[in-house]
Amino acid sequence: MQNVTVLGAGSWGTALAFVLAENGHQTLLWSHRKGQADEITKQHTNKKYLGEQLLPHNLQATSSLEQAMQHSDVIVLAVPTKAFREVIAQFVTILSVPKLFVHVSKGIEPDSLKRISEIMEEEIPQEFRKSIVVLSGPSHAEEVVLRHPTTVTAASTDLSAAELVQDLFMSEYFRVYTNDDVIGVELGGALKNVIALAAGIVDGLGYGDNAKAALITRGLAEISRLGAHMGAKPYTFIGLTGMGDLIVTCTSVHSRNWRAGNLLGQGKSLDDVLEDMGMVVEGVRTTKAAYQLSKQHDIEMPITAALYAVLFEELSPREGVDQLMLRTKKHELEDFKSFD
Amino acid sequence: MQNVTVLGAGSWGTALAFVLAENGHQTLLWSHRKGQADEITKQHTNKKYLGEQLLPHNLQATSSLEQAMQHSDVIVLAVPTKAFREVIAQFVTILSVPKLFVHVSKGIEPDSLKRISEIMEEEIPQEFRKSIVVLSGPSHAEEVVLRHPTTVTAASTDLSAAELVQDLFMSEYFRVYTNDDVIGVELGGALKNVIALAAGIVDGLGYGDNAKAALITRGLAEISRLGAHMGAKPYTFIGLTGMGDLIVTCTSVHSRNWRAGNLLGQGKSLDDVLEDMGMVVEGVRTTKAAYQLSKQHDIEMPITAALYAVLFEELSPREGVDQLMLRTKKHELEDFKSFD
Repeated sequence: MQNVTVLGAGSWGTALAFVLAENGHQTLLWSHRKGQADEITKQHTNKKYLGEQLLPHNLQATSSLEQAMQHSDVIVLAVPTKAFREVIAQFVTILSVPKLFVHVSKGIEPDSLKRISEIMEEEIPQEFRKSIVVLSGPSHAEEVVLRHPTTVTAASTDLSAAELVQDLFMSEYFRVYTNDDVIGVELGGALKNVIALAAGIVDGLGYGDNAKAALITRGLAEISRLGAHMGAKPYTFIGLTGMGDLIVTCTSVHSRNWRAGNLLGQGKSLDDVLEDMGMVVEGVRTTKAAYQLSKQHDIEMPITAALYAVLFEELSPREGVDQLMLRTKKHELEDFKSFD
Repeated sequence: MQNVTVLGAGSWGTALAFVLAENGHQTLLWSHRKGQADEITKQHTNKKYLGEQLLPHNLQATSSLEQAMQHSDVIVLAVPTKAFREVIAQFVTILSVPKLFVHVSKGIEPDSLKRISEIMEEEIPQEFRKSIVVLSGPSHAEEVVLRHPTTVTAASTDLSAAELVQDLFMSEYFRVYTNDDVIGVELGGALKNVIALAAGIVDGLGYGDNAKAALITRGLAEISRLGAHMGAKPYTFIGLTGMGDLIVTCTSVHSRNWRAGNLLGQGKSLDDVLEDMGMVVEGVRTTKAAYQLSKQHDIEMPITAALYAVLFEELSPREGVDQLMLRTKKHELEDFKSFD
């Protein structure tokens, strides 16, 4: 048993702390809100994110980042992508010994076009990090705390670090597989939100399951094309963090990105949608980044391009989808040529 | 414009005849029931399968197999897999000139372990067939007759025949891609029903979206492993007829196979389920065939094996799924080693 720190007490950070605590690890969860930290420690709930769900008693919380960082040498970052650099800047001054960092975020930074682990490498001095591991896969937090079977992937260029993370989290209901393809795992997790937005639009237009299945299939192909060009292993995109996460995100009404797309397809404006949802829709930022990446690497990504035009250039959702359907491509395996 | 014959006036045969007729082809649909044929020709409906949907006036129907076969040199077979050999035996005696045959069935014959096109090669003398094309993909008939965007694949070892079929069916809402991998397209269409049954069980047990996404992902991997060993191109399984069709079948309540699995997961017996549904559940037959194929080719197919034990060896659905979750595999890409 081991001490573990989780930074960020949203639904996913709390669910991961739940799994760690159930596995017997002394788990400290950091929230920047003192009230929330007190609720978790004393009432063993996190009502804002997980309703009445009881949390294990060995799961404690704190609003002191210093205390959280001193608690352990394994730091799980579960903060929103947008707040990522800011949180690191806060704790980096406290660091005195090298730690193992795990992140669970799914995004690509627009303009810089950096993946999350690249941001970490940039912001955390090398002498203070042992390794970086990304934990990703098809995983609604609400199902994890109900102990429903869930499988995720721990990826690192340092396979022994990935295996350590696997051992920390692995339980009867939470299965962790290792992978050494960090680029593929990070790109799959981020880019699937682009396809989920587009799938939501198809559903919002009332186009049906046939159209949506085609979109998801060709979406995975274009993500894989880009990924392969950026150094990922193509097969990673057919795994849990690619296809698996894509399916969950495109077919669940719980997915924020799908819901945002669905509202767009029904005719709402992007501003109205974002206001309605009252929270970050990661896929909007990621669409911009994905579009920039497709240009930079000169990779054909028709779904991403159509969605970019819908989000940022006032193309109507119907026109965007119809353009995709009327493409001239004729031979199916053209989509996969980059795999060879 | 051309004469085309469709054999079988179920929902899918009728929808395909609808597309052909809308494209201007003189389309003759064969039903073995005279009343149904008359309804289609005179009332322009097929209420049993497509409700009040109006059919094009240039879509005629007949209950004379002889008349149907004489109508054209392009014969689309849309009859249930179980009736396949019988229907061929009926028309094969009438044949006098070679014809192009298209089939749209998704199954593998247990014991013989033949794919549909292999059955056709066996039953139709070579001098009476120009080529065989399989048309497959994610396609609910109900959505096609509403002209919702749908994409399918026409596959043949004779690519010019596949292109001819592409030209016949292609329209604004019905997109056809060609592929030369008949084995991959046929296996994908058939084996996806096995995974859909298993996905239904996971849903029936109430295990949630995380578990189902993992099952679908690993299901596609095991289908691809078998397919690659049998001579299919692995990428075909990531295309419309593999992943695309799998997603539709596993996530739509309209899917018979998913529904059968769902009832099994809720605790009903196989006999009760089959009686309840009152129609063929293709995936049950295909699970037997898939299990036999995995043994014959010595390919590890844990989901197929677990489902076989549930269907035919009285393993409880819960035990079957739990066994899958507790497998010892640790490194994710093990699933895909056969791709290399």
